[in-house]
Amino acid sequence: MATTPPTRSPELRKDPVTNRWVIFSPARAKRPSDFKSKSPENPNNNSSSCPFCIGNEHQCAPEIFRVPPDPNWKLRVIENLYPALSRKLDHPNGLNDDSSSELSGLGWVVAGFGFHDVVIETPVHSVQLSDLDPSEIGDVLIAYKRRIEQIKQFDSIKYIQVFKNHGASAGASMSHSHSQMLSLPIVPPSVSTRLNSMKEHFNQTGKCSICQVQSKDLLINETSHFFSIAPYASSFPFEIWIIPRDHSSHFDELDNKKAVDLGGLLKLILKKMASQLNNPPFNFMIHTSPIQVTDSELPYSHWFLQIIPQLTGVGGFELGSGCYINPVFPDDAAKILRELNVPI
Amino acid sequence: MATTPPTRSPELRKDPVTNRWVIFSPARAKRPSDFKSKSPENPNNNSSSCPFCIGNEHQCAPEIFRVPPDPNWKLRVIENLYPALSRKLDHPNGLNDDSSSELSGLGWVVAGFGFHDVVIETPVHSVQLSDLDPSEIGDVLIAYKRRIEQIKQFDSIKYIQVFKNHGASAGASMSHSHSQMLSLPIVPPSVSTRLNSMKEHFNQTGKCSICQVQSKDLLINETSHFFSIAPYASSFPFEIWIIPRDHSSHFDELDNKKAVDLGGLLKLILKKMASQLNNPPFNFMIHTSPIQVTDSELPYSHWFLQIIPQLTGVGGFELGSGCYINPVFPDDAAKILRELNVPI
Repeated sequence: MATTPPTRSPELRKDPVTNRWVIFSPARAKRPSDFKSKSPENPNNNSSSCPFCIGNEHQCAPEIFRVPPDPNWKLRVIENLYPALSRKLDHPNGLNDDSSSELSGLGWVVAGFGFHDVVIETPVHSVQLSDLDPSEIGDVLIAYKRRIEQIKQFDSIKYIQVFKNHGASAGASMSHSHSQMLSLPIVPPSVSTRLNSMKEHFNQTGKCSICQVQSKDLLINETSHFFSIAPYASSFPFEIWIIPRDHSSHFDELDNKKAVDLGGLLKLILKKMASQLNNPPFNFMIHTSPIQVTDSELPYSHWFLQIIPQLTGVGGFELGSGCYINPVFPDDAAKILRELNVPI
Repeated sequence: MATTPPTRSPELRKDPVTNRWVIFSPARAKRPSDFKSKSPENPNNNSSSCPFCIGNEHQCAPEIFRVPPDPNWKLRVIENLYPALSRKLDHPNGLNDDSSSELSGLGWVVAGFGFHDVVIETPVHSVQLSDLDPSEIGDVLIAYKRRIEQIKQFDSIKYIQVFKNHGASAGASMSHSHSQMLSLPIVPPSVSTRLNSMKEHFNQTGKCSICQVQSKDLLINETSHFFSIAPYASSFPFEIWIIPRDHSSHFDELDNKKAVDLGGLLKLILKKMASQLNNPPFNFMIHTSPIQVTDSELPYSHWFLQIIPQLTGVGGFELGSGCYINPVFPDDAAKILRELNVPI
């Protein structure tokens, strides 16, 4: 049994990767080991009406590809029926190289050209990503890579955000396990901030801040090619990063062997999170580099996968300041998850 | 009755104030006039157990001041019983001028010294802020100002975030109407980003971007000293800014007369929002300037109050990219709110 940790004073930390201040405020918390989701993901097993289930393909927006390419598919990549951006718009016209043009003094505007795709991770409604084998999760990761390689052909796409919403309160409108890829005609603000912060760290120290992020106290689990940590300035309780050991700027440098290795670690971490935190809704996001990156940016850009369980809400303080208040120190979260045993 | 607006193409906009990209994606929306909160704020009228009610003062953390200073108070400013930062810590020690010190290569750390105060806006449990008279709301605003003036005496406080969470899903843990003030030993990231963005705009145009933000299509309501708009690159549907007409860098420059004027406009806007959007949970935040501001920063720093009704959730895309997807164009939101009549 975990013992109550000694009371710690509040502390503000800033991460050299995200450049974001976080207030660690243990006085507001129950014991770290008592954190549980109050709104566990409620599986909807009504597969008869689910367009993502095998046999209901005709209810979906057009397919981009399936794996394997036959009626007994294991995963499909399709268009989002309600895309946030339009693939039907002309490519941005009348725009200069940075894809932006000013409008009437009020701000900058870019035509909403882009791709919004859905990756259906399994043909079976009741199966979750963490139920798949490591090699099957690897297939999902390789599907992301394959779709990125297709989209990279479009010069006007600057960044591809891969993400997964699991559970209604984490933003999932469909309960059938899926992830999404939103391909943008801009480099989004969090990505610019992250790269600028990592550049500054590199200029000061000569080192990649992600390569340096590992510490014994923050480590959760590791494999041949990846390790998982609770990051030093976690914005959220039990936030987890999975990081490739080798310095690698882009997610789509992932090869098949490493994809299976990552699949195994992702499965383990998702199982641990579900067990410890009462099957919480969660998001994961792949933080990679913009499609066009110069050689000079490569030494400090290093991709990673971030997992955020939805345990606490966001209020006016966070919306106003961009600071987060986290009641759980990451070394406490890491210790709990590191020492937890789950059946795999 | 509002007619269905013609279908518009998606568009990305960046605001010169927040420097944040927003995707406007009308294809994902119902008609703008159909937006309603699905989780309206559920008033808890059980005042017998509420420590914020008049007569229960002994259940609260220590009082800072009350108005008027007698048993029949109309508002109280008290310490937060579960403060995110500690007023009992020594002032940050061993820190240099920018209040930060590096720790073990993992990131920056600052001792969690600060003030976390609560403003109880009314002695009566069932009264909401928008139920108060303009002059009473003005008293709340002047209480913020008075507390800011007290805290400004502490050199190690760099920024004071004033905010209100209304409704449980907007982060309010108490249903009795209140707002909060969190005084920080750092300038938070959203504030730095905003000031840098406004500085860039000023250097390019010679003008304050907030002074320029008004446009006929985005205007909702105006008074002698303030105007309210749906901002050009609203991150959220029906987001509203209330802005002082006169260029003013700090909220605490507000005088008593302008406080009553602002109280009236805030009341009107909150009433309109509740009527149009089914009494949604909401947050408001005062965006002001850091306490220490040099004269050279004054020409481009201009405070405003931001109101965000909680109508849509945030998912992996927003968490990962820092971009928001907004299904409602601000000129549609402004028109609906401008044309709405509510009893005051």
